[in-house]
Amino acid sequence: MTLSVVYWVLAASILALAFAFFFYKSMMKEDEGTDLMKKIAAHVRKGAMAYLKQQYKVVIIVFIVLAIVFFVMSLFHLQNGIVWFAFLTGGFFSGLAGFFGMKTATYASARTANAARRSLNSGLKVAFRSGAVMGLVVVGLALLDVSVWFLVLKGTKLLEMVGAEADLVTITTTMLTFGMGASTQALFARVGGGIYTKAADVGADLVGKTEFNIPEDDPRNPATIADNVGDNVGDVAGMGADLYESYAGSILATMALGASAFATSAVEGLQMKAVLAPMFIAAVGVLLSLIGIFLVRTKENAGMKELLGALSRGTNTAAVLIAAATFGIFAWLFGTETSQWWHVSLSVVVGLLAGVIIGKATEYYTSQSYKPTQKVAESSKTGPATVIISGLGLGMLSTAIPVVTVGVAIVLAYLCANGFHIQFTATNLSMGLYGIGIAAVGMLSTLGITLATDAYGPIADNAGGNAEMSGLDPEVRKRTDALDALGNTTAATGKGFAIGSAALTALALLASYVEEIKIALVRVAGAATDGLAKVTDEVSWTVEQVRNASLIDFMDAYNVNLMNPVVLVGVFIGAMMAFVFCGMTMNAVGRAAQKMVEEVRRQFSTIKGILEGKAEPDYERCVAISTKGAQHEMLVPSILAIIVPILTGVILGVPGVMGLLIGGLATGFVMAVFMANSGGAWDNAKKYVEEGNFGGKGSDNHKATVVGDTVGDPFKDTSGPSLNILIKLMSMVSIVMAGLTITCHLL
Amino acid sequence: MTLSVVYWVLAASILALAFAFFFYKSMMKEDEGTDLMKKIAAHVRKGAMAYLKQQYKVVIIVFIVLAIVFFVMSLFHLQNGIVWFAFLTGGFFSGLAGFFGMKTATYASARTANAARRSLNSGLKVAFRSGAVMGLVVVGLALLDVSVWFLVLKGTKLLEMVGAEADLVTITTTMLTFGMGASTQALFARVGGGIYTKAADVGADLVGKTEFNIPEDDPRNPATIADNVGDNVGDVAGMGADLYESYAGSILATMALGASAFATSAVEGLQMKAVLAPMFIAAVGVLLSLIGIFLVRTKENAGMKELLGALSRGTNTAAVLIAAATFGIFAWLFGTETSQWWHVSLSVVVGLLAGVIIGKATEYYTSQSYKPTQKVAESSKTGPATVIISGLGLGMLSTAIPVVTVGVAIVLAYLCANGFHIQFTATNLSMGLYGIGIAAVGMLSTLGITLATDAYGPIADNAGGNAEMSGLDPEVRKRTDALDALGNTTAATGKGFAIGSAALTALALLASYVEEIKIALVRVAGAATDGLAKVTDEVSWTVEQVRNASLIDFMDAYNVNLMNPVVLVGVFIGAMMAFVFCGMTMNAVGRAAQKMVEEVRRQFSTIKGILEGKAEPDYERCVAISTKGAQHEMLVPSILAIIVPILTGVILGVPGVMGLLIGGLATGFVMAVFMANSGGAWDNAKKYVEEGNFGGKGSDNHKATVVGDTVGDPFKDTSGPSLNILIKLMSMVSIVMAGLTITCHLL
Repeated sequence: MTLSVVYWVLAASILALAFAFFFYKSMMKEDEGTDLMKKIAAHVRKGAMAYLKQQYKVVIIVFIVLAIVFFVMSLFHLQNGIVWFAFLTGGFFSGLAGFFGMKTATYASARTANAARRSLNSGLKVAFRSGAVMGLVVVGLALLDVSVWFLVLKGTKLLEMVGAEADLVTITTTMLTFGMGASTQALFARVGGGIYTKAADVGADLVGKTEFNIPEDDPRNPATIADNVGDNVGDVAGMGADLYESYAGSILATMALGASAFATSAVEGLQMKAVLAPMFIAAVGVLLSLIGIFLVRTKENAGMKELLGALSRGTNTAAVLIAAATFGIFAWLFGTETSQWWHVSLSVVVGLLAGVIIGKATEYYTSQSYKPTQKVAESSKTGPATVIISGLGLGMLSTAIPVVTVGVAIVLAYLCANGFHIQFTATNLSMGLYGIGIAAVGMLSTLGITLATDAYGPIADNAGGNAEMSGLDPEVRKRTDALDALGNTTAATGKGFAIGSAALTALALLASYVEEIKIALVRVAGAATDGLAKVTDEVSWTVEQVRNASLIDFMDAYNVNLMNPVVLVGVFIGAMMAFVFCGMTMNAVGRAAQKMVEEVRRQFSTIKGILEGKAEPDYERCVAISTKGAQHEMLVPSILAIIVPILTGVILGVPGVMGLLIGGLATGFVMAVFMANSGGAWDNAKKYVEEGNFGGKGSDNHKATVVGDTVGDPFKDTSGPSLNILIKLMSMVSIVMAGLTITCHLL
Repeated sequence: MTLSVVYWVLAASILALAFAFFFYKSMMKEDEGTDLMKKIAAHVRKGAMAYLKQQYKVVIIVFIVLAIVFFVMSLFHLQNGIVWFAFLTGGFFSGLAGFFGMKTATYASARTANAARRSLNSGLKVAFRSGAVMGLVVVGLALLDVSVWFLVLKGTKLLEMVGAEADLVTITTTMLTFGMGASTQALFARVGGGIYTKAADVGADLVGKTEFNIPEDDPRNPATIADNVGDNVGDVAGMGADLYESYAGSILATMALGASAFATSAVEGLQMKAVLAPMFIAAVGVLLSLIGIFLVRTKENAGMKELLGALSRGTNTAAVLIAAATFGIFAWLFGTETSQWWHVSLSVVVGLLAGVIIGKATEYYTSQSYKPTQKVAESSKTGPATVIISGLGLGMLSTAIPVVTVGVAIVLAYLCANGFHIQFTATNLSMGLYGIGIAAVGMLSTLGITLATDAYGPIADNAGGNAEMSGLDPEVRKRTDALDALGNTTAATGKGFAIGSAALTALALLASYVEEIKIALVRVAGAATDGLAKVTDEVSWTVEQVRNASLIDFMDAYNVNLMNPVVLVGVFIGAMMAFVFCGMTMNAVGRAAQKMVEEVRRQFSTIKGILEGKAEPDYERCVAISTKGAQHEMLVPSILAIIVPILTGVILGVPGVMGLLIGGLATGFVMAVFMANSGGAWDNAKKYVEEGNFGGKGSDNHKATVVGDTVGDPFKDTSGPSLNILIKLMSMVSIVMAGLTITCHLL
């Protein structure tokens, strides 16, 4: 068995990519519609590609600099010599996933609009299959990267050649470093894309909607193409890179946890199986996702309810099947040797249930079908200020259910996996952490289909923009809006899984950090003349002692407890990072939007006949402004996320870094939920008023909710989603820099 | 020496109260002005007192319930039998401080307005001396409570009578429980007062200013009296109870730390001296505050600059003198026995410097004299949405300096106090924590004068309201506005001290929590037939073992390290608490304001001639609505703050509680800074526009900044300030409930 499993994983990844190609081809066969539709789509495509090119140029420089730093560090034995290259491949594949997703989306939007001219169902099919391309590309590329690297590191002497050991713990921990590549790329994509899309959106809305009272996506608005480009670079390319990172990160972290939990297992081969399990669950998830995708079909002329049923059938079937499959997988892998198989499998059920609960809570707090969002809409009666206050209040309150759910899930997944032993022993801890990781992998394993239901939303949104601009029948716009709304409902669960799994993965990364410290200490002790590695001023360990030390021993030796002031300072800085990072990205959107507003106003006042639709606005210029603004603004917050963990390590040492990661994780997680839900509620409160409640479109109440929606834009599409990546990137940086931290720190 | 020091502290407290009485009397001798001024002042006074009566009624019920709970717990040996009574006295004195402060303020406002008719300087004198009443009452009552209790517990057999030991650790830890009384009272006062004042303010502004375009404090606005009452119950009574809690809390926590740090000291009497030091520093601070208060005087017809100089001279002199005095105090107490005296004294310098830096940063981010707030004002050019976005961004960014400063201060105070030993040993830790506590005490020791500069702001504000409503010369209003603005500048430093010391005190309370666990374990082991107290499933200790266990031993035994999932879940819940608490209070303000808006609109539409000033509005009804709304809304968030730590303890046990406290502290601290600074910046951005920038008063830009100011109201005056208390109350509850947690917990 063993290594052959990896070939199956490789096969699953190729299968996913093959189906992605198949869906892409079948989408391309669709007609793109009228000449005007083609022209508009080409405009958007060109703008999006131009942006991506620009962004990748900047990111490549950052990657080269970091790769050089890692290479130099390896010369000083602060890292092994593979990191710099693994880091690059992670970034490359993550970028590639975003690129393919966006390419598909920009080709699909006009085709979706055109298909929606026939029927709602046709529109759904094109949009959903295009979304599936994104889903399958992400999981396919991630599994490809993971499986190939594993085969290379396990099957060749590469690690020995760079002077490292080739045991499973080292292999899996080394592989985590290409997780850092994916995280770095994802952060730039999310922050850059998020700034781009919201600068364009806010700029277009503020002048177009509020000042000149022209509708959304009106071709007279100079920022409208930029707005549609933004949906692609932010919601599609940004989301693709983001979820690539989550997916790969959870698999890699759990592999590392498996290697460490079973490192001293008496049963031969069990460690290898524990390492393979997350990969294999993900591979089975690919197959189940494909089944789910093919289940999404309805009879022609289906209503909204049938469509929703079709989508839910796909995702729910995949989720239930993966839970069942996990029991089978662990029974097969572990069954004969130990009874732990069903313990660990239970963790997946816990994870999936947590995801569903978070998703339902998200839906409750952000959908206009429920009280909370309706109350935000109602508060528009007293003006924009109360809309903001009630939206912020809603978002803050809405953090309770997800946080408590994740808390319960952590404890339950932990207890399930270690056979319900409350005792805090090294073995129970390792097994429990492995269970937490497996729960995260389970939640993300059907990403192929959940991402499809997530990614088709922006495609439908863009199709609506195209329909509006090319003057199609309003019925078409209604259909694309319905598709978009449909996507929002099904996406809630997907978001629940993404948020929940991010928190669990971040916990798993914390354990990986300690493993990396261990490897670095072995390296240090091995190179030292006295054979000792200095842990603290009081404690020095031999190679043997380091090897035998458990996670708990490390906590004791490094004094990573809550009475250590250095830990507390780390927690403070971590909490602060979440706020400062959001502040930076919020301000970036504000500044970039400001420039867009000025440009749109300039065009309205200088281009004659623009408001009557007689003269064409200068779309290109708005696209260029957003591109430049996003490039300029994304650098500082992204680099901050890389530098702060390094500085914390160099100044405060290991306890400070662990405090930083916990503080950042806790505050960042809660804040991400807050921002996403406040933003979502404002968006839907506006829609609720537009549906004719509290005065309807054009009323003062409507204007008040537009203010809420505008504030919510950077909340839900820039700062909020970036936080998930920030948390994990800080962990990844700490892991990669562990060697530096232990050899050189001030306190 | 020794106990005689306590009598000096008692004398200082009586001196403070005597001067408070003297200032009160001299204020009362001032003329209250015209009949109309008297009438309006009487209206406000009546409303404020009616509110306070209502609030105390509700709070008394909560206190009685809690006291009964504590009494019952003492019957089951989960607490000693003094707690329930000490708890009540803490709440009583805290409430008394708020009551006296508010009584003075409501008598002072008309008198300040009347004095301001003569000159700016006369107005300052009346307002500032009235503010000093508040400052001196707070420090006087707190020191009275602390010193009398200490004399009783040390000098009588009370503790032995209730079956507890009478060593210094038990005495000081028992005294902490009246800190819980003060915290509970403070939370109700802040939350209730904060909801009241902002419901009235938002209600008055939204209808009056925005819909009917009538100025602030216009007598035609039915909510205007309620608004002025709100300033008193929120900014005066709420702040008084809040700072009473901070002041008493820092002294009590540091006394407990001193008792524990020197518990095993070989030098006889050193432990007692370490316990007395914080009280004594506070007592000297009272004298220095009095000197400072008398330094605040200028020549008649002084300009703004001279007035600012006069105020700064008072606070700065007191701050510099207390730093110097601390060296003297420690030299005198410790000098002959140990060289540690100057180490510990250095911590105070660190604390004071941190306070100054945080204060300056606050000023930079929130004053319209600097770029950040001006940029918020500028963003009004693109409407209210960008004002909100940029204000939120500013607030989030502004957390960086305070957090890093507090982080550096923690590390430095820690290192200073333990003689610059980086090693993490039990002795160094205890000494370091004592140093952190002493730094907090140093920062708050001159509260007598810093609170005077803080509290006179709302008095001047109310004086302005009185001047407006009674139709005084606009010049008077200008003068009171100038006084208010002046107060805002000097208050920034005071706020820096309050925020910084809250973070340090909360850290100190964390250590006290472990001490309380120790005492509870001794009690358990003493009562057990086998003489053992169960720490965890694996560890049981004898009385002797418990006594000899250091803070670090407790961390190890209870597994309070960052790899323990229970700790992490606690941190998550703590972070969530900060958000949920803010969300609740924000929504409470929203709901209460909504009711006010409806009432004001109703009056404007049904009372004929109200807008022409021919008919008098029904002020009483608005006052009643605010009172009822605040009573109703303050209960749930306040009770949540008490129940969550108890539930966490019962479910997650000691590691979960410590995680909760750290998570709540880190997120709550950062969030408090964020909310205070966003709110302050919005307020001053509006003022900046009103000063004639970006279109000035009445322009669309001005309206956009009014939206920002309205959102900022609950930020800076309800949710933000309540967070500081929330953090400490959760710690206090955990300390009081420690006995329950160790005997009964699920995990």
